[in-house]
Amino acid sequence: MYRIGIDASGGDFGEAEVIKAVAEYLKVNADIHISIFGVKEIINREIEKYPFLKNNANYTVINSDEKIEMNDHPVIAIRTKTNSSLVIATNSLINHSIDALISAGNTGALVALAQFYLKPIQGVDRPVIGAIVPTSLTPMLLIDSGCNVDSKPEWLYQYALLADSYYRLMFNRVPSIGLLSIGVEENKGNNLTFSAYKLISNNNKLNFIGNVEARELARGICDVVITDGFSGNVFLKTYEGTAKLMLELIKTQINSSLISKIGGLLIKPSLKKLLKKYDAKVYGGAPILGANSLIIKCHGNSKSGEFITAISQAKTLIEKDIINVLRNNFKE
Amino acid sequence: MYRIGIDASGGDFGEAEVIKAVAEYLKVNADIHISIFGVKEIINREIEKYPFLKNNANYTVINSDEKIEMNDHPVIAIRTKTNSSLVIATNSLINHSIDALISAGNTGALVALAQFYLKPIQGVDRPVIGAIVPTSLTPMLLIDSGCNVDSKPEWLYQYALLADSYYRLMFNRVPSIGLLSIGVEENKGNNLTFSAYKLISNNNKLNFIGNVEARELARGICDVVITDGFSGNVFLKTYEGTAKLMLELIKTQINSSLISKIGGLLIKPSLKKLLKKYDAKVYGGAPILGANSLIIKCHGNSKSGEFITAISQAKTLIEKDIINVLRNNFKE
Repeated sequence: MYRIGIDASGGDFGEAEVIKAVAEYLKVNADIHISIFGVKEIINREIEKYPFLKNNANYTVINSDEKIEMNDHPVIAIRTKTNSSLVIATNSLINHSIDALISAGNTGALVALAQFYLKPIQGVDRPVIGAIVPTSLTPMLLIDSGCNVDSKPEWLYQYALLADSYYRLMFNRVPSIGLLSIGVEENKGNNLTFSAYKLISNNNKLNFIGNVEARELARGICDVVITDGFSGNVFLKTYEGTAKLMLELIKTQINSSLISKIGGLLIKPSLKKLLKKYDAKVYGGAPILGANSLIIKCHGNSKSGEFITAISQAKTLIEKDIINVLRNNFKE
Repeated sequence: MYRIGIDASGGDFGEAEVIKAVAEYLKVNADIHISIFGVKEIINREIEKYPFLKNNANYTVINSDEKIEMNDHPVIAIRTKTNSSLVIATNSLINHSIDALISAGNTGALVALAQFYLKPIQGVDRPVIGAIVPTSLTPMLLIDSGCNVDSKPEWLYQYALLADSYYRLMFNRVPSIGLLSIGVEENKGNNLTFSAYKLISNNNKLNFIGNVEARELARGICDVVITDGFSGNVFLKTYEGTAKLMLELIKTQINSSLISKIGGLLIKPSLKKLLKKYDAKVYGGAPILGANSLIIKCHGNSKSGEFITAISQAKTLIEKDIINVLRNNFKE
């Protein structure tokens, strides 16, 4: 039976949404064991809301006294807050008492735990988050979405290898890989992309399509986009922010007159179909790739739906033995 | 009388839109002299479409045999294509036979001409394009939008100084200045932003509001955003691409059923008001700041409306003596 850990302290909505997800999952499934990390008292209070959990043997609560806050400095936090849910859960990964960990907590702290506690697998310099981003075609894997700034060309090359393996595993096909740059020509970019371009294009096992421009990404021009953590973060936040703002502005305009309000009611069902495609619940979390154990990072504003999807992702990735697949691919 | 040069060879729509703009402008104005740079034969053919231009003394055509193409390597192009409209026009700036140049041509070539032919003003390392970007509040000045990749912290600091002076000149108020980063805290960012943050925050004449995140930019969180050319380009293209895609997707959804089509017709007038705010015509071109003469860069897909706005911008900036204002500010 797979053993999945979940951090109840992380995320904007605290323990309530995590426990709701655990309850909803265990109400209809008994195929995994869930370790819930966090402040026992708060967790138990949430658990009481779901009486059927009382005699359920598929979960355990592991108490922690400290909490790594969203604004804590990652490296300092993981070194000093050794009784936090994140550090305790990471130790459970290291001593193999859980097979994967899900958390909506401090991203930097999770990546630092992967780097310094779990350690990178051989051949990888920096573990990295592979975020799945919706596009108007198929979902796209964005690496790096904000973990490692001041990147080196070799890191970007390693991201391409990690992404290729992960994508094949998850979606059963060879992904097209693009390198984010400021023009499609090989000579457009900065020193980092010039060197990374050479490294990635030299590996003919990868389906590398060359440079891609930010404006084409939302149209699903490639399955995987490789970039440094700074630019990836700028892309992701601009994409999310613009899409959200556009919808808000359109809504405001529609509500500005009676006639357009009526029009708004008529188009509502069609627009709902569109929005469903961009629903974060579908994507769950994003794995930290390249470390010796599996951590799945959920968005800070995740609700129970996202956590449930993340549990399924964790199950799939444990089943497909992702850590060993990546280890073997990097040995080659 | 101000003398404004315009490059007829640049831009996706060629000479037709440039000459249309000149004709429309000169039909109702006689306050400036326009030098049109490009292939005389083509230009004259376009001019014939506007009979009233025949005896108009407010323009001259300056012939060029070569053209710098959009895909030419900037530095090589400006050194080898010495008979191109861009190089000839730049020489006219240098020998003061025109006061400003407008072009929708190869951005890299224009920036290289500013750097190597016009030369930066004292205290500036790299001339840079200040692009005006619409937001849901007031327009925002984005520097750098893609000129100088692999930037140094001092360049970013100089951009802040250039932006501050330009903004005060154009909009008559002190702009709030943000530094694009991956978190609002001072310790979030990369080595470049850490150093730039210190330089900018040390100058208390600037209204520096600290780090800003990409997702807040479209909401008009600051008047000026400072970043390196790579990240600025990623931001700008993601912003443009996402906004365009969202509208396309919504349109497709609205057309997917009869009822929502009717709804679409009812909301159309309201949406048009919204789109007007994001109309590129309003913004015209973007000045290259920090060189010894004034070049205004128009978007490649500019039509006559954008060129006419750019002519007005050029007039305003010549009138306000922007080059000397910047020179004096950097002397301090």
